[in-house]
Amino acid sequence: MKPYIHNVKYYECDRMGIVHHSNYLRFMEEARCDLLEQLGYPFNKMEEEGIVSPVVSISIDYKKPTTFTDDIEITIVVKEMTDLKVTFGYTMKAGGALACKATSTHCFLGPDHRPVVYAQKWPDLTERLSELLVQQ
Amino acid sequence: MKPYIHNVKYYECDRMGIVHHSNYLRFMEEARCDLLEQLGYPFNKMEEEGIVSPVVSISIDYKKPTTFTDDIEITIVVKEMTDLKVTFGYTMKAGGALACKATSTHCFLGPDHRPVVYAQKWPDLTERLSELLVQQ
Amino acid sequence: MKPYIHNVKYYECDRMGIVHHSNYLRFMEEARCDLLEQLGYPFNKMEEEGIVSPVVSISIDYKKPTTFTDDIEITIVVKEMTDLKVTFGYTMKAGGALACKATSTHCFLGPDHRPVVYAQKWPDLTERLSELLVQQ
Amino acid sequence: MKPYIHNVKYYECDRMGIVHHSNYLRFMEEARCDLLEQLGYPFNKMEEEGIVSPVVSISIDYKKPTTFTDDIEITIVVKEMTDLKVTFGYTMKAGGALACKATSTHCFLGPDHRPVVYAQKWPDLTERLSELLVQQ
Repeated sequence: MKPYIHNVKYYECDRMGIVHHSNYLRFMEEARCDLLEQLGYPFNKMEEEGIVSPVVSISIDYKKPTTFTDDIEITIVVKEMTDLKVTFGYTMKAGGALACKATSTHCFLGPDHRPVVYAQKWPDLTERLSELLVQQ
Repeated sequence: MKPYIHNVKYYECDRMGIVHHSNYLRFMEEARCDLLEQLGYPFNKMEEEGIVSPVVSISIDYKKPTTFTDDIEITIVVKEMTDLKVTFGYTMKAGGALACKATSTHCFLGPDHRPVVYAQKWPDLTERLSELLVQQ
Repeated sequence: MKPYIHNVKYYECDRMGIVHHSNYLRFMEEARCDLLEQLGYPFNKMEEEGIVSPVVSISIDYKKPTTFTDDIEITIVVKEMTDLKVTFGYTMKAGGALACKATSTHCFLGPDHRPVVYAQKWPDLTERLSELLVQQ
Repeated sequence: MKPYIHNVKYYECDRMGIVHHSNYLRFMEEARCDLLEQLGYPFNKMEEEGIVSPVVSISIDYKKPTTFTDDIEITIVVKEMTDLKVTFGYTMKAGGALACKATSTHCFLGPDHRPVVYAQKWPDLTERLSELLVQQ
């Protein structure tokens, strides 16, 4: 897959002059949306089908600060797939140097707010995601 | 009405070390929600009735920067009421000094996305708002 | 000048499902930074010279909501130039339709926090900006 | 220590109608600032001494969504203290129900951008923090 590039905005930086740590979770979301788009299952199409995809958990290690006008290159892999959850792994680099490593786990909820077995609902997407699965 | 106090957060400040100018629109929203609550018409009650209240326009003059841990005291008045729109006026002070002057104009849309004549829908709220109307 | 495109992110939308009105001020800042970059005076170069450029005032009319995955095309003109202040005018369109009209006024402060007469400090930039000046 | 209360704002909610997951990192920061204030070492005093405190890592489990007007009660404990890093543990509840569990690890950098051995720099604060240390 093509990495996602986030260009850091002025308003994303804090008093320390660096990107506020909470914003990386937003960049990760951007990269996920881009990945789903590349896989042919854009996030808003899911929403139109009445599916929402809440975040179950996040872990993130901040390695090196980034700042205004940096281009952050975000690469995503799939780390784990269970019946109800998918875990993505993220590598964020700026100027060739590692900025952050992170993971995020997601589930899918149907219009009745009940968990969706995504392999049944979207077999093609599941196939594509499993191709991105990495050996730990 | 009791003024609304917003205590400035670390993450609301930018690289200049001051509150990012876009955040004052959020503080104004907080103050509006607080006002409606004080008037007995909390914003989420409106939403439950299927009414949304988009912002039609904003104007804001930034007089003096504020920063982390400042308490911003926001006073609201009603500047104009027409059949479909209400205009609020805001005075924001920190440490006794004027930080911003602003206005915001709002309309109300029903479940069918059509404008609502609020005086018909909420005569009591309209009565209360008109008591806050100031001579220009 | 080339218009600036902001692609709307999921996290920029609010409970109404549309871009929160405060975010347009951030998109305007992005477009300004892009304009200065196109003019050869990137904002971070100004910062390196010890100049900061606070926002003096903003006015914005919200014409039509935008939402997740919309591309907002932002065109900037210069509306007014005085010794100490520049006023920009913004037209924001999505899918060909007008989303917002706005203006923003800025000053420049030197390392001593005193106003800078920008025509003296950056005659070339001033020349370029005055070429973007429109008749009202 | 007294728990910190964050009252959820309208603009903190996303298209799903719930608090965007990135915002909890901001609420955690608010709670940390409040804790340091309660301990007599407000964050801006640290900044005045030329110390910044970047976030090293975060982990967060989202248990139950929160939304506009919820009061989130945040309780902090200290989970680990090493020479250079402190790890906090957070429990966030809304309406008595668990909303999130999280941890954050921080270091301290001096004016020379080098790590600070905080026990040497702030023995009193270190003493206070170690009183909040919990058995795992």
